[in-house]
Amino acid sequence: MEKKYDVVIVGAGPAGLNASVYASRYGLKNVVVGEISGGLVTQTTEIGNWLGEKNINGFEFVQKAIEHTKSFGTEIIASSVDQIKKTEEGNFEILLANGEKFKSKTILIATGSKHRKLGVPGEKEFLGKGVSYCATCDGFFYREKTVGIVGGSDSAVSAALYMSDIAKKVYLIYRKDKLRAETFWVNSLEKAKNVEIIYSTNVKEIKGKDKLEKILLDNIYKGSTEIKLDGLFIEIGFTPNIELIKNLGLEIDNENYIKIEQNGQTTINGVWAAGDITTGSNKFKQIITAASEGAIAINSIQNYLKK
Amino acid sequence: MEKKYDVVIVGAGPAGLNASVYASRYGLKNVVVGEISGGLVTQTTEIGNWLGEKNINGFEFVQKAIEHTKSFGTEIIASSVDQIKKTEEGNFEILLANGEKFKSKTILIATGSKHRKLGVPGEKEFLGKGVSYCATCDGFFYREKTVGIVGGSDSAVSAALYMSDIAKKVYLIYRKDKLRAETFWVNSLEKAKNVEIIYSTNVKEIKGKDKLEKILLDNIYKGSTEIKLDGLFIEIGFTPNIELIKNLGLEIDNENYIKIEQNGQTTINGVWAAGDITTGSNKFKQIITAASEGAIAINSIQNYLKK
Repeated sequence: MEKKYDVVIVGAGPAGLNASVYASRYGLKNVVVGEISGGLVTQTTEIGNWLGEKNINGFEFVQKAIEHTKSFGTEIIASSVDQIKKTEEGNFEILLANGEKFKSKTILIATGSKHRKLGVPGEKEFLGKGVSYCATCDGFFYREKTVGIVGGSDSAVSAALYMSDIAKKVYLIYRKDKLRAETFWVNSLEKAKNVEIIYSTNVKEIKGKDKLEKILLDNIYKGSTEIKLDGLFIEIGFTPNIELIKNLGLEIDNENYIKIEQNGQTTINGVWAAGDITTGSNKFKQIITAASEGAIAINSIQNYLKK
Repeated sequence: MEKKYDVVIVGAGPAGLNASVYASRYGLKNVVVGEISGGLVTQTTEIGNWLGEKNINGFEFVQKAIEHTKSFGTEIIASSVDQIKKTEEGNFEILLANGEKFKSKTILIATGSKHRKLGVPGEKEFLGKGVSYCATCDGFFYREKTVGIVGGSDSAVSAALYMSDIAKKVYLIYRKDKLRAETFWVNSLEKAKNVEIIYSTNVKEIKGKDKLEKILLDNIYKGSTEIKLDGLFIEIGFTPNIELIKNLGLEIDNENYIKIEQNGQTTINGVWAAGDITTGSNKFKQIITAASEGAIAINSIQNYLKK
């Protein structure tokens, strides 16, 4: 028999998990479907800006959030959603990749965003063979090796800092002439002795035989446009995960973010969105902003279901 | 000598404290000025919807948030702001009630909201003599007594539940015919044996001699329009604290909330607002929404100061 819900929450990052906590406290029958419990937060080393926690790592935070969500008896299903269809009665049918099928009165899309690709030759070829989008996931394999990080944001600079403790040598390669990470991260990085920052430079190509061996730069650095590396971490931001919702007909903006009202409602009746995938929160992608959007959406869904 | 800041944060609730954490991590020189560190959260008994914490009380949460804020060396000044003036150079001069004077490049208003009054005879007269707006602050004085709670929201229902453990008898008086609190709270309340809920009824008057003795209702309950009480807790919502900003000329909406853009900017250049005092977050007043608005505003201030 198909399970029926008040709201099916698609995505298990901070937006989805916090939405579930709020939904459960409102007494709404809800389920969370997401490939990775915790979403991209699982890839975060140190979280320094979650109010009340001076220092908590991504894994620990996610464990606490999952425990909180499950404490109401809510199921978090480790799968993805293949299809969402609106039925004639105005409800939704949800088909999961694992074969399960749900019915729901409302949908909350909180599928977040994924790592942006560099789009250079060798990037696809050497993925998992030296190329990675997550230093905290794969950094461990580069103990006493030489690695490069691409980017200048909080993620890139904190990844460089993380790798400086593990690797022998770290190059941070950024296309602009000034890092745009928090001053906190930049100051910490500047104290790391095994880090060299290469400004105003792009990675043009990734080369190797069976695995990554070197990268080519579009600028000369210390007399050469080539750097020998064992690993390259690409940390250049995110793009929204909108594959699933393409056929739902939701309006998106020119950067592929789902357009939402202040209450989280999308342009389709019965469908809300929250977190990094939306145009909300001034597109400031933080755990706190995603969690807040999840709460606001559920409050609005609760009012909608009452009617 | 006057102290100079990048941003003066007015208000020490979740919006102000989280704004300070973000500002400090961006390396912005900041100070928090607020009468009550933690703001209205200090009056919350149980917080059940702060992601990752299954159960934390208001006091404990505030202590952790203050400690986090101060861990960057930031000062939280227990005072209020008397005046904010824009100088000719486009900076601000801030005069505190304690006599201190600051200069700042930007201002973040996060003064939140205060308890709404019933507006009935006796309310003012018996304030502190039986009338209270905060069960967790004053409930302790009503051990084994009979108390009334006015309201039907999360605050009112959780206050009734809190008082049911302390008082002998609790009346919850609500003007509508159905509580609008979270199902979680309503279910818990229904299990409390010493609580009676009086629906579709208003408190018309508060009477007594030296202290509150009884209330008058606008409907007959169990044969009478009078209830003998030792205490009455009024929990009927909040109104924004806008006294300070009246002379700044910020645009407010018809409910006195400060109008903000998605980035927290107000209608005055150099002034941002965050938390319960704003039109943001669909006016859903939660710790998580206030904290999120504080983070978004600082991110925007950081971009503004870079230019």
